[in-house]
Amino acid sequence: MSNSIGKLFKLTTFGESHGVAIGGVIDGCPSGIKLDFKAIQVELDRRKPGQSKIVTQRKEPDTVEFLSGIFEGKTTGTPIGFLIKNTNQKSKDYSDIKDTFRPSHADYTYTKKYGIRDYRGGGRSSARETANWIVAGAIAKQILSNIQINAYTSSVGDLYLKKPYQELDFNLTETNIVRCPDKKIAKEMIAKIEEVKKQGDTIGGTITCAIQNVPIGLGEPIFDKLHARLAHAMLSINAVKGFEYGSGFCGTEMKGTEHNDSFNTNGSTKTNLSGGIQGGISNGMDIYFRVAFKPVATVLKKYQTIDKDGKAITVQGKGRHDPCVVPRAVPIVEALAAMVIADFMLLDAITI
Amino acid sequence: MSNSIGKLFKLTTFGESHGVAIGGVIDGCPSGIKLDFKAIQVELDRRKPGQSKIVTQRKEPDTVEFLSGIFEGKTTGTPIGFLIKNTNQKSKDYSDIKDTFRPSHADYTYTKKYGIRDYRGGGRSSARETANWIVAGAIAKQILSNIQINAYTSSVGDLYLKKPYQELDFNLTETNIVRCPDKKIAKEMIAKIEEVKKQGDTIGGTITCAIQNVPIGLGEPIFDKLHARLAHAMLSINAVKGFEYGSGFCGTEMKGTEHNDSFNTNGSTKTNLSGGIQGGISNGMDIYFRVAFKPVATVLKKYQTIDKDGKAITVQGKGRHDPCVVPRAVPIVEALAAMVIADFMLLDAITI
Amino acid sequence: MSNSIGKLFKLTTFGESHGVAIGGVIDGCPSGIKLDFKAIQVELDRRKPGQSKIVTQRKEPDTVEFLSGIFEGKTTGTPIGFLIKNTNQKSKDYSDIKDTFRPSHADYTYTKKYGIRDYRGGGRSSARETANWIVAGAIAKQILSNIQINAYTSSVGDLYLKKPYQELDFNLTETNIVRCPDKKIAKEMIAKIEEVKKQGDTIGGTITCAIQNVPIGLGEPIFDKLHARLAHAMLSINAVKGFEYGSGFCGTEMKGTEHNDSFNTNGSTKTNLSGGIQGGISNGMDIYFRVAFKPVATVLKKYQTIDKDGKAITVQGKGRHDPCVVPRAVPIVEALAAMVIADFMLLDAITI
Amino acid sequence: MSNSIGKLFKLTTFGESHGVAIGGVIDGCPSGIKLDFKAIQVELDRRKPGQSKIVTQRKEPDTVEFLSGIFEGKTTGTPIGFLIKNTNQKSKDYSDIKDTFRPSHADYTYTKKYGIRDYRGGGRSSARETANWIVAGAIAKQILSNIQINAYTSSVGDLYLKKPYQELDFNLTETNIVRCPDKKIAKEMIAKIEEVKKQGDTIGGTITCAIQNVPIGLGEPIFDKLHARLAHAMLSINAVKGFEYGSGFCGTEMKGTEHNDSFNTNGSTKTNLSGGIQGGISNGMDIYFRVAFKPVATVLKKYQTIDKDGKAITVQGKGRHDPCVVPRAVPIVEALAAMVIADFMLLDAITI
Repeated sequence: MSNSIGKLFKLTTFGESHGVAIGGVIDGCPSGIKLDFKAIQVELDRRKPGQSKIVTQRKEPDTVEFLSGIFEGKTTGTPIGFLIKNTNQKSKDYSDIKDTFRPSHADYTYTKKYGIRDYRGGGRSSARETANWIVAGAIAKQILSNIQINAYTSSVGDLYLKKPYQELDFNLTETNIVRCPDKKIAKEMIAKIEEVKKQGDTIGGTITCAIQNVPIGLGEPIFDKLHARLAHAMLSINAVKGFEYGSGFCGTEMKGTEHNDSFNTNGSTKTNLSGGIQGGISNGMDIYFRVAFKPVATVLKKYQTIDKDGKAITVQGKGRHDPCVVPRAVPIVEALAAMVIADFMLLDAITI
Repeated sequence: MSNSIGKLFKLTTFGESHGVAIGGVIDGCPSGIKLDFKAIQVELDRRKPGQSKIVTQRKEPDTVEFLSGIFEGKTTGTPIGFLIKNTNQKSKDYSDIKDTFRPSHADYTYTKKYGIRDYRGGGRSSARETANWIVAGAIAKQILSNIQINAYTSSVGDLYLKKPYQELDFNLTETNIVRCPDKKIAKEMIAKIEEVKKQGDTIGGTITCAIQNVPIGLGEPIFDKLHARLAHAMLSINAVKGFEYGSGFCGTEMKGTEHNDSFNTNGSTKTNLSGGIQGGISNGMDIYFRVAFKPVATVLKKYQTIDKDGKAITVQGKGRHDPCVVPRAVPIVEALAAMVIADFMLLDAITI
Repeated sequence: MSNSIGKLFKLTTFGESHGVAIGGVIDGCPSGIKLDFKAIQVELDRRKPGQSKIVTQRKEPDTVEFLSGIFEGKTTGTPIGFLIKNTNQKSKDYSDIKDTFRPSHADYTYTKKYGIRDYRGGGRSSARETANWIVAGAIAKQILSNIQINAYTSSVGDLYLKKPYQELDFNLTETNIVRCPDKKIAKEMIAKIEEVKKQGDTIGGTITCAIQNVPIGLGEPIFDKLHARLAHAMLSINAVKGFEYGSGFCGTEMKGTEHNDSFNTNGSTKTNLSGGIQGGISNGMDIYFRVAFKPVATVLKKYQTIDKDGKAITVQGKGRHDPCVVPRAVPIVEALAAMVIADFMLLDAITI
Repeated sequence: MSNSIGKLFKLTTFGESHGVAIGGVIDGCPSGIKLDFKAIQVELDRRKPGQSKIVTQRKEPDTVEFLSGIFEGKTTGTPIGFLIKNTNQKSKDYSDIKDTFRPSHADYTYTKKYGIRDYRGGGRSSARETANWIVAGAIAKQILSNIQINAYTSSVGDLYLKKPYQELDFNLTETNIVRCPDKKIAKEMIAKIEEVKKQGDTIGGTITCAIQNVPIGLGEPIFDKLHARLAHAMLSINAVKGFEYGSGFCGTEMKGTEHNDSFNTNGSTKTNLSGGIQGGISNGMDIYFRVAFKPVATVLKKYQTIDKDGKAITVQGKGRHDPCVVPRAVPIVEALAAMVIADFMLLDAITI
């Protein structure tokens, strides 16, 4: 297993979906940072289940308890241990999948790799783990108070928010439950998710994220390029199938003369198809990227599968699950982005 | 700087485009592997400049010299030091860009980050570095003799090879200079690149890679998921702007009932939209992914830019450059994929 | 900060002496190991305060709570999160040292490095942290069921147990409160510590450790030599000033012809001045080493020191402290040794 | 294998004693440092064989060639690749030990671990590797121009230089071939080594090292304490059996009231039994430590051993070897100390 992320700002996590608690250790957080605990809880609330009609109805307060590394409200430079208790584990929901492998879940691969499986709620492979990341990300955001990190839902199924991020008002993101900063499209997305949910089905989508006011010089070539670390972090999120930054896959159809970002005399660039990163190092322009989420595997329908002995069986999907993971993943994308940027800030030895 | 990749099978590299030599150290290669040195050189030849009319005309033999870690033709388990001498450094080609920043290159960010720049040929940021990866990847391939890794050019500009990889004959990939295993599309791609080259311009493209016969169990959740490491590796390649695996960005438009891969009774799946990885761990099905390359930044045209003092100037693009990086990047994608898979094989403690 | 130890069997810890709890995450523990929880608690009890008249009288039950990574009594291969609550924090004991620096403590260096200090009980620098190591070490011991790790008190002040470890009965170690497997010397040591305690003073000592039945091949040259990692681990323990293995400092006075360990025909050696390690790799003979502990810095006497403004003041030493750290450090030495050996077992890919 | 040392200032090495070359990659060296190449060669000359009558008579110029990371005499922040060619490999000297295991060498353990052995001159386990460390250490010393690192021979066999380092004139260290800064003792040491050499035997010794003018705050608890990293580095040197710092093993006989270092009002301490490190962090006082070297295993006498089939045989020791490793190890101790300190300087984000 490999449960740590980051080099200097480093998070190590533990916890299963239906165990006693999940939690982690944040090592390398600079000392003397006055923490805004409410802001941390706000981020957890953005991710928590049961927050709206279009997400899983599992209810968890997701309250973080800090155990160390903070003294009189300030970080001390020592490791920050924390935990989030699991309060609403309906393990019985899972007893009938105990001996079967759900298609496109991690059940099969975990069982084969480890020879043993905590079948309750996906165990370690559950997206519940991402609550830990929110905690570390919320602290990273407080370190990066001058940098703005804004993610939002840019598509649900084939419904796309086609405006570039520059034309959006990020203040609108939290005004609707799908977290799309365009009221009209948001409404359509919500309707789409409700429809899919009614069918007992699920749907994929994408999240776009913009990081603004980044200093020049973040990123450590050759093997810790800023965008490569962002990709690594984003592809650590459950259900993510793709990552692109700057011009991304569209850029492959372009010519060099179209794609090159000409300089202004102050070193900024007239266009920004590079996505704020050149040679793996931030150039001071906005960083922006897009993350692809497949539809959640758990459907509330009858499906064919096999049990642990390889026998074909029919199972009725049950439990409380997200019809679309994207709305709750928006703060997760931001959290990981904040952790990556904070790590590179420290690596670049910029005094924070 | 961060110039190592891998945890147990680890490559550390050095070298500038126009220095004495590039090279590296491969640490963690298992002992007792009889090396096929010709096969290593074949891979280097697939990447080397000057190999065809659609790539840069710089001539470099790119001969690797092994300095350690091999005794009587076999690996000894000790680190394998190697170097590739630079023989054809036309540094004078670069003297007139010494004081200017080329748009969408790493010139500006390296200078800002390090306060100093080896301006000759891009220095450390040059894609010449990838020759080092070919060496390590070629050795990784020999460790993974039971696993097939096949990459190919799947698009150039807006010309796409639309067949899925299952319908292709990988033996055709090396039969044409653009490395597309479909003769008709290959011809069109070559024509497209020649046209772009004639204009002094460049063009982007994509590479698809399939990894077959992978054992179940590779990948180390939560933060070393197999696909996250593949993404990290691929986004380390110069000019790469995106990565997707399995259903990728297309999968975001699908419903769960369409996307889920049903099991056969032997544990394999009927479809493979998961791309051979579930929960970050290989499930024994084919792994496949796609990598997006932007057009090369160096164009042989007049362009506007700034010099180190921020003064606007006009520069005439010169030098020997690739009109399209994709054909030469095919073996690079394979090399990195092999290194990642070899690393996870060792981490999973499978006896090789 | 750097709060992780190990490469594959990796412990990350957190916690201050007088905070809510201490704890950690064990990552990389193999799956399927049936844990003996009583055995873990036994190890904690060997280390815990208040266990005898010659150790600190602070009372802490030191009960470990496991939060993850274990299912139906077995390890699952996922990270094992655990915590030990602090129940007997008499922070008021420390209020009068809040603004002063105790000589030969970490007060001064922590304050200078981090600009902030949790002054209660030494905060992060307290030896309370070692309880976390006991937990990880106790699990490592269970992985290494075929290997015997025995540490014991080999000196207190100038009282030495002069017999080599081969002449001792390790079953006697736990029969006395100073953990010396020689009844007569043990008695003298206890008397010495009681005398020093009566004076309000403290005394140093040494611990010897033998690791028996180690397979050949553990250790990863050049920079993870088995003995170098053991030294690193032992010098992580509070109050440790030195480490030697095999012939150690005595070996420096010897000649090669005296020091060389001749082979038996089965590959074992007639003597073992090498201490079971040659070239950084275990050779199958017993590994043995010795660790030097300075006297505890906290004395219950009046002493001169300075406050945070650099003003000289006189302080009366108070609180509950160990007159000699060695008896409680015996299980700590074993725990770290077990963690190091377990890590190298995994690195050597020996099936456990 | 594990052939890297350091976290931010990181050296990765390769090379066998009798291969083409040894060398390495220094990653993380700050940019803009004007290198004094002569000073680097001076350090190599201090270590090189054949330098005096009391060391091995093998002749190697040990000239380092830099391949990257340096431009117009200054470091660029990119990895510094370098190599040292092997010019005087008398492999035939080793042909008769090809199938035998030399007592107290790494022959046996390497063969058992890797299943294969480069028997020429010890292969990877040869102390020739330390020439690589000298290169990295010499560069680290140039980064640390304000810090003085002085090692010297403090004993040969039972001949001790009994004065504490404060009473010595480090300028005398290089005035004699045994590197002892006391003329009288140096003479005796040299005579001792010559006598041992005449017998075809070898002898051990110790090296003391003082690091002066270290800033407060170096070291990263809990698992990268400054002294633990120094110990790890020193125990990586061939033939080292022990490490102690500050009061070391002597401190174990002391009482707390004797051992504690009282503060002066400026934060310095009146005594320095702590050895400049408290809680794993430098306190600004001198750091000093002592390293134990066993006698070299290769003796020029007849000895009994076994061959690879376990058959007992008699061998006549041959070749060119050091009768005492200590004089040549003095610059090695300094080099590793410099690398450790440089790494912690960067980790502590002190602008260099």
